[in-house]
Amino acid sequence: MFSYVMQRSVNSALTLCRHNHTQYLSVNNVDGTREITLNNDKTRNSLSLDMMSYLVEEINRDKDNDSLRAIVLTAKGHVFSAGHNLKELQASSGVEQHKVIFDKATELMMSIVRSPVPVIAKVNGVVAAAGCQLVAQCDMAVCSETSKFSTPGANFGIFCSTPGIAVGRSVPKSRAMYMLLTGEAISAQEAYESGLVTKVVPADQLDKEVNNIIDKIKMKSRSVVSLGKEFYYKQIELGLSEAYKLGGELMVKNVNMGDGQEGIKSFIEKRKPVWTHKQ
Amino acid sequence: MFSYVMQRSVNSALTLCRHNHTQYLSVNNVDGTREITLNNDKTRNSLSLDMMSYLVEEINRDKDNDSLRAIVLTAKGHVFSAGHNLKELQASSGVEQHKVIFDKATELMMSIVRSPVPVIAKVNGVVAAAGCQLVAQCDMAVCSETSKFSTPGANFGIFCSTPGIAVGRSVPKSRAMYMLLTGEAISAQEAYESGLVTKVVPADQLDKEVNNIIDKIKMKSRSVVSLGKEFYYKQIELGLSEAYKLGGELMVKNVNMGDGQEGIKSFIEKRKPVWTHKQ
Amino acid sequence: MFSYVMQRSVNSALTLCRHNHTQYLSVNNVDGTREITLNNDKTRNSLSLDMMSYLVEEINRDKDNDSLRAIVLTAKGHVFSAGHNLKELQASSGVEQHKVIFDKATELMMSIVRSPVPVIAKVNGVVAAAGCQLVAQCDMAVCSETSKFSTPGANFGIFCSTPGIAVGRSVPKSRAMYMLLTGEAISAQEAYESGLVTKVVPADQLDKEVNNIIDKIKMKSRSVVSLGKEFYYKQIELGLSEAYKLGGELMVKNVNMGDGQEGIKSFIEKRKPVWTHKQ
Repeated sequence: MFSYVMQRSVNSALTLCRHNHTQYLSVNNVDGTREITLNNDKTRNSLSLDMMSYLVEEINRDKDNDSLRAIVLTAKGHVFSAGHNLKELQASSGVEQHKVIFDKATELMMSIVRSPVPVIAKVNGVVAAAGCQLVAQCDMAVCSETSKFSTPGANFGIFCSTPGIAVGRSVPKSRAMYMLLTGEAISAQEAYESGLVTKVVPADQLDKEVNNIIDKIKMKSRSVVSLGKEFYYKQIELGLSEAYKLGGELMVKNVNMGDGQEGIKSFIEKRKPVWTHKQ
Repeated sequence: MFSYVMQRSVNSALTLCRHNHTQYLSVNNVDGTREITLNNDKTRNSLSLDMMSYLVEEINRDKDNDSLRAIVLTAKGHVFSAGHNLKELQASSGVEQHKVIFDKATELMMSIVRSPVPVIAKVNGVVAAAGCQLVAQCDMAVCSETSKFSTPGANFGIFCSTPGIAVGRSVPKSRAMYMLLTGEAISAQEAYESGLVTKVVPADQLDKEVNNIIDKIKMKSRSVVSLGKEFYYKQIELGLSEAYKLGGELMVKNVNMGDGQEGIKSFIEKRKPVWTHKQ
Repeated sequence: MFSYVMQRSVNSALTLCRHNHTQYLSVNNVDGTREITLNNDKTRNSLSLDMMSYLVEEINRDKDNDSLRAIVLTAKGHVFSAGHNLKELQASSGVEQHKVIFDKATELMMSIVRSPVPVIAKVNGVVAAAGCQLVAQCDMAVCSETSKFSTPGANFGIFCSTPGIAVGRSVPKSRAMYMLLTGEAISAQEAYESGLVTKVVPADQLDKEVNNIIDKIKMKSRSVVSLGKEFYYKQIELGLSEAYKLGGELMVKNVNMGDGQEGIKSFIEKRKPVWTHKQ
């Protein structure tokens, strides 16, 4: 609402979407939200090198454009994503190509963490292996009651070691190890109880729930949200004293940003804030 | 019970409480428990610089007096605390004053961690922003069923970056990010499910539940509890091997403290221990 | 099933079990699973130096034998383990002996982490102090509905500082601190809600549930499971970027192992994999 004109530019950028994209992803930019839909049913939305490259491209596209406020990752079909494309991991591809693939997977995960806007997984279906990593790496995940989550790589000789990085930072060890060592799926409810997902809702309320979250994000200053998201991932890896030391400095910086002062003024003046969304 | 005479000295110290204190806090020292009540309804118990300074003072007061066994942080009114006082963060206060404020907030949080006695939040109401940080930083938190927890700072242009330090170490990322990025409140039940609070009870059982916890603490040696609390916060930031290395050394030290040996003897002799509470 | 002949060699190794062992442990090797049962009812399965030494010995025995696929730690009687043997911690034992005891406890915990096969606690009863540490340090824990978990050391003058290392990495701070500072037991359900245990089942389904987990583990390549378990504990202590950097390298290594390629081939060829279980 604050940036209708700029949103138009994102909307028109959408029309430039390349054709070979569409067999992997469909991308929809509406009112500041980019919804990226995995759209490759025939491979169960596998994270092939191409799929991952396009995902990185779409997550990073125009990322510093103020009109972009949130990214949603979702999927068409009953399988959100089955994980890496095992065909690409055959010996015949060669070790160098395997390195390219896992480097791209890391780039994909870090592009979510480093995106200046919140990235939300909207899940209705089966989430497996690197697909589970993708969901766990998002800032938030909302799923339907029938969704299922697993890291079964070891069944196919490839332990879900990199999915375990994201999953292991989201759920307690006793659950992460169950998923990784047995390969068994956990239910949506168990995923909620373990902390893997933010909320579980009936499938027909999934859009509404995610839209509620995005509405709340869009009421805020983009630059303030971006600053806060970046700091969360920085501080969570630090010791407590060091985190508070840097946190205090960041708060002083935030308070003295234009939108920091506008927020405080609007609160005192009991009016709605008018954000610049600038740092 | 072990230190009735010393408790009296804490009780009399209470009478020295300065007058200008009472508009912010009321403090009650009974039988080894110091209950500090935020008492500034008109600012929704905001953590103004004065409020934080008095909290630090009360948390640290006589902290090495053996008769002090537990600290309870609670609040009068429906709002436990609304967080920082935004009026103090206006540009007109100046950057140096902003630094003083966030340094004091860090001092407050670390005074809880470094207190030699357990600090328990007793919550019946709305907990927001730095108020949520305060609760999350306590060793334990018990809340009523109608309590609510949020970190809505970004609504006012100030992302809850420092609250996120305490909250992010208490709840899974998928929940912390929801709270920080949307600003929405979670219920007492959701706070329990996420690990933010120790227990949720009906409001009329809140005192009883917290008193049960304190009774259990007071049955133990003060010096042993202090040693254990300090080590918890030290080891939790270390790698597993290093933690066990230091932990083994600490256990040997604990075993050879006077109260360590008294505990073992009393167990073997099937009698109640008589603690010195000395290190 | 893949290694019937080798399992026989483990089974025969069992017959070499020393007699003085049996008052502490009974060990049963069946079909690739080593079930180690704490069997010292009269000390409430206390983790005496002897008990810990035998546990380390059994956990490490033949650990690189490919036929060993999983270890189960369980107990006879209503007390899984009451923790350290306080009699051994009397001053009369001497500080040097105390060091030996806690070094052995650390060795025991790290032998679980470093075991190349999953170690699963199967709990039906009371788990206390270092007994709770033992359960929390296992890769997974399944318990009956009536099991109880506590870290009450401070009641006996010895704070559960080392149990807090394992428990504090398994449950949120608000719960760990409750257990450590009050010494009160939490129920099986609370242990599940806090992440301490993987699953809670009725007592009469405990064996079945653990066997289901083991069946899933045995379907996989031993070397792949071992590689994955080792990396989990390594990466969980690293920052996210560093974890992904090492994780990518590990995935490339895993993909190019014999069993990695066999897994991929079998998937593509739609047949069951035939593992070598070799690195």
